[in-house]
Amino acid sequence: MTATLYVCTTCKVGEVHEDDSQRPGARLHRALEAHGAPEGVRIAPVECLSACKTGAAVALSQPGKWTYVYGHMTEADAPDILAGAAAYAATPDGLVPWRERPVIFRKQSVARVPALTLPLEAAE
Amino acid sequence: MTATLYVCTTCKVGEVHEDDSQRPGARLHRALEAHGAPEGVRIAPVECLSACKTGAAVALSQPGKWTYVYGHMTEADAPDILAGAAAYAATPDGLVPWRERPVIFRKQSVARVPALTLPLEAAE
Repeated sequence: MTATLYVCTTCKVGEVHEDDSQRPGARLHRALEAHGAPEGVRIAPVECLSACKTGAAVALSQPGKWTYVYGHMTEADAPDILAGAAAYAATPDGLVPWRERPVIFRKQSVARVPALTLPLEAAE
Repeated sequence: MTATLYVCTTCKVGEVHEDDSQRPGARLHRALEAHGAPEGVRIAPVECLSACKTGAAVALSQPGKWTYVYGHMTEADAPDILAGAAAYAATPDGLVPWRERPVIFRKQSVARVPALTLPLEAAE
């Protein structure tokens, strides 16, 4: 199984661009692709994660794991985002130990949602 | 299949309570249970949706559908939350037409994440 790193390509973050490809979300997507997805991760562009107030936003998801959404990401964060995605992919449930998460993931969580296949007792 | 309405029971929303059962998230959960889940929806308490800045938070999820997270919910919103959950449960993909969404869902979106089983082309 592969973890998916969704990248909102429509995030504007208050910027105005005539060319949509210059939006912060689209630039973040290109930066992530330029670095390349780590093992066990695929990068997937998405048009709108509905996290417009906290863009640029990314999400990590994989069947059987918690889903995480992170906000206020920039191109400079690409290496940390990919390191965090690799750590996520290596877990059985999506729960990376707190100290092993990139600081941007610790501080810029937008939300997380349990995996539907996990027993609710595991939701902690 | 049944849609799951996750309710963060640990959301504090800036309030201080010695008794955790008085937290805004816990009160919201009780209000939703008191109204009762509509057909096709189950209500599931969760300890922390990591949306602390936008609590009280709820999430709607179902295999094969987009997952949605909503924030700044209060006990008074329980009827609207349940109406929105019922509308979500009735869709094939989680995408309720904009005008049919409760106003609190239109205005208080925290994030949404595509279903892993949906083709990315449908992510719009």
